[in-house]
Amino acid sequence: MGLVVQKYGGSSVADAEGIKRVAKRIVDAKKNGHQVVVVVSAMGDTTDELIDLAEQVSPIPAGREFDMLLTAGERISMALLAMAIKNLGHEAQSFTGSQAGVITDSVHNKARIIDVTPGRIRTALDEGNIAIVAGFQGVSQDKKDITTLGRGGSDTTAVALAAALDAEVCEIYTDVDGVFTADPRVVKKARKIEWISSEDMLELAASGSKVLLHRCVEYARRYDIPIHVRSSFSGLPGTWVSNVNPRGDEHVEHAIISGVAHDVSEAKITVVGVPDKPGEAAVIFRAIADAEINIDMIVQNVSAASTGLTDISFTLPKAEGHKAIDALEKTKGAIGFDSLRYDDQIGKISLVGAGMKTNPGVTASFFQALSDAGVNIELISTSEIRISVVTRQDDVNEAVRAVHTAFGLDSDSDEAVVYGGTGR
Amino acid sequence: MGLVVQKYGGSSVADAEGIKRVAKRIVDAKKNGHQVVVVVSAMGDTTDELIDLAEQVSPIPAGREFDMLLTAGERISMALLAMAIKNLGHEAQSFTGSQAGVITDSVHNKARIIDVTPGRIRTALDEGNIAIVAGFQGVSQDKKDITTLGRGGSDTTAVALAAALDAEVCEIYTDVDGVFTADPRVVKKARKIEWISSEDMLELAASGSKVLLHRCVEYARRYDIPIHVRSSFSGLPGTWVSNVNPRGDEHVEHAIISGVAHDVSEAKITVVGVPDKPGEAAVIFRAIADAEINIDMIVQNVSAASTGLTDISFTLPKAEGHKAIDALEKTKGAIGFDSLRYDDQIGKISLVGAGMKTNPGVTASFFQALSDAGVNIELISTSEIRISVVTRQDDVNEAVRAVHTAFGLDSDSDEAVVYGGTGR
Repeated sequence: MGLVVQKYGGSSVADAEGIKRVAKRIVDAKKNGHQVVVVVSAMGDTTDELIDLAEQVSPIPAGREFDMLLTAGERISMALLAMAIKNLGHEAQSFTGSQAGVITDSVHNKARIIDVTPGRIRTALDEGNIAIVAGFQGVSQDKKDITTLGRGGSDTTAVALAAALDAEVCEIYTDVDGVFTADPRVVKKARKIEWISSEDMLELAASGSKVLLHRCVEYARRYDIPIHVRSSFSGLPGTWVSNVNPRGDEHVEHAIISGVAHDVSEAKITVVGVPDKPGEAAVIFRAIADAEINIDMIVQNVSAASTGLTDISFTLPKAEGHKAIDALEKTKGAIGFDSLRYDDQIGKISLVGAGMKTNPGVTASFFQALSDAGVNIELISTSEIRISVVTRQDDVNEAVRAVHTAFGLDSDSDEAVVYGGTGR
Repeated sequence: MGLVVQKYGGSSVADAEGIKRVAKRIVDAKKNGHQVVVVVSAMGDTTDELIDLAEQVSPIPAGREFDMLLTAGERISMALLAMAIKNLGHEAQSFTGSQAGVITDSVHNKARIIDVTPGRIRTALDEGNIAIVAGFQGVSQDKKDITTLGRGGSDTTAVALAAALDAEVCEIYTDVDGVFTADPRVVKKARKIEWISSEDMLELAASGSKVLLHRCVEYARRYDIPIHVRSSFSGLPGTWVSNVNPRGDEHVEHAIISGVAHDVSEAKITVVGVPDKPGEAAVIFRAIADAEINIDMIVQNVSAASTGLTDISFTLPKAEGHKAIDALEKTKGAIGFDSLRYDDQIGKISLVGAGMKTNPGVTASFFQALSDAGVNIELISTSEIRISVVTRQDDVNEAVRAVHTAFGLDSDSDEAVVYGGTGR
């Protein structure tokens, strides 16, 4: 039995009862002969309450102090979890990100892990302890200041520790049973996926699936750490995410389509009437990049021969919309476009699956399913293993259900698991 | 203008408004040209809430993890305070006990400071920052674990930092205006003391005065750090505590009596019928010491010649009463005493003042005042600069008022400040 890293999110440790339930699950893993390292998030609403306090004393909380504040949340949950484990008769020690050797850069509020030196964790394990580590936090290499890793940071902490400790698996415990073929709140017949490749999981995460964040999956893929996403409530097996199917290649068990993701958190900006000559797009997207805005899809229409003008559209998080418009308005003189159109009533539907590479019919089937459902397509973007379309936001749920059914992903369908080579 | 250490307690930073008020006061000190180091406690009820959570997950919270938990409290208050200061346009950085170089032994929940290495604080000050330091916490020298200093620990942190940084003064901000000649809730005419010697303050603290704890005053006396106790609400000058009167010795301004303290938190145990031979008392108090119980007064009555038996009484915190009885019962065979009497309806009144040393009339006046008030004395204990008596708890308030008046300490009295050499 080897080393297991388990990560529990805030909803799993929302109150004393939750902490005791999680403690029992951790002790079970220890009893099964594993060395156990646990990464824990702040309890339930703690982080929101701390942010609220910060806003009461200062309208623009400062980076360094904001991180110092937020890291109090995991300090509470990890200490309580260690106490609860000791109360079950097992030894446990809690460690801050700094104590656990999570070394980051100095970008407060969204630091990146640059090294993990888990010497104290290794010692605690060798002495028979269960090690509890604060998720989401680290210490900056140069200034030794406390940093936080930003959204989804605890998952990243777990994967990074799993890599540094050469763990067998990184178990991400959450409040859902795993990764589904679509959001079960939208598609009642969505199926839990038993295994998905890191590659497909990355595309799902980038396309709106909330279960695992892109950054965490990317880290796991790079260091070849298998992730097991599962529920801390049900105890059922969840979804395995890894570079290679653990059942072995000989089964060639590879679904053409892993799942359907959707995202209604984005807006679309169209720059209308851009002169169709080299360098114009570069000016536009340099302005966006300089404003530190992450964009998603970019589409440029063919220019009308009569005018020599073209339209460039892109999608971005709604929260960044105003900033982007401001940044573009300032470039108007340099580019000479006609106008800007901003639309936040859009939604994105993405079909993800490595099987697409060798199944040219997938794209056609996707568009057919949308057409049959009466959904109009506004933008299209593709990668080797993903097709995404932008539609009206009101059409998104219906579109997701239609596509899910069309690709035989519904759970009561005989075609629920589609193997490679069917030529679809 | 030199370096000032300011300490703010939990009631001063109980909410966002309190934090903003304190931030303003800190900035005022900085504007006056001081380098400012601030030690802050956890906000209001935070510590109690954390203890409550700990008790929900484990009936006997473990030392190391309990410290990890509690230190989250100061982390929140110090980060918020730094943010509030920055919001006023001044630079501030917060530091944990560990970051501030507060090195302790490894006795969790009541660690002792063994060294202070405030390199990061000095750097922060040199760069023009106000340094905010978490009170009550440190890091153990051997294991690098987070420790807490126990009750009143933040005051000790402040004095220790003031000593290590060679500060001009350690200002302890609290919710009262300073040290009074008696508890103002009991004695309406109690006066605020402008200056009191460290020696007298130590005796007052040991006798039940709650404003400063013994440990903090002892630290300040050893390193010759003047303490200024004052209100964070009123802004008035408070009480100076120092080894030497800052107005200079030539004034010989030294009250015979500094104040009257009382304490109703203790109980009395009497060991009845102890054989009056060498070594018996040692067995009794070894048993108490082994149970880690701190005792206060000890009185042994003269033995009755006819029986060769004596009674030994001592006082101790009520909370330790049952533990002490248990420990003593176990020694009954070895000592052969008759019985144990436990009494938690007692109170202690103490008169403190360096002038007593050279004024033999003080003791007689003290007993006369109690007698005039009809208060019966049960135990007496004295030091060079203090007389304490134990009475019925119900008599305490009346006794304190009577003594306060008898020694001319009432605020409307012409004798409010008594100078040395009057022969009283």
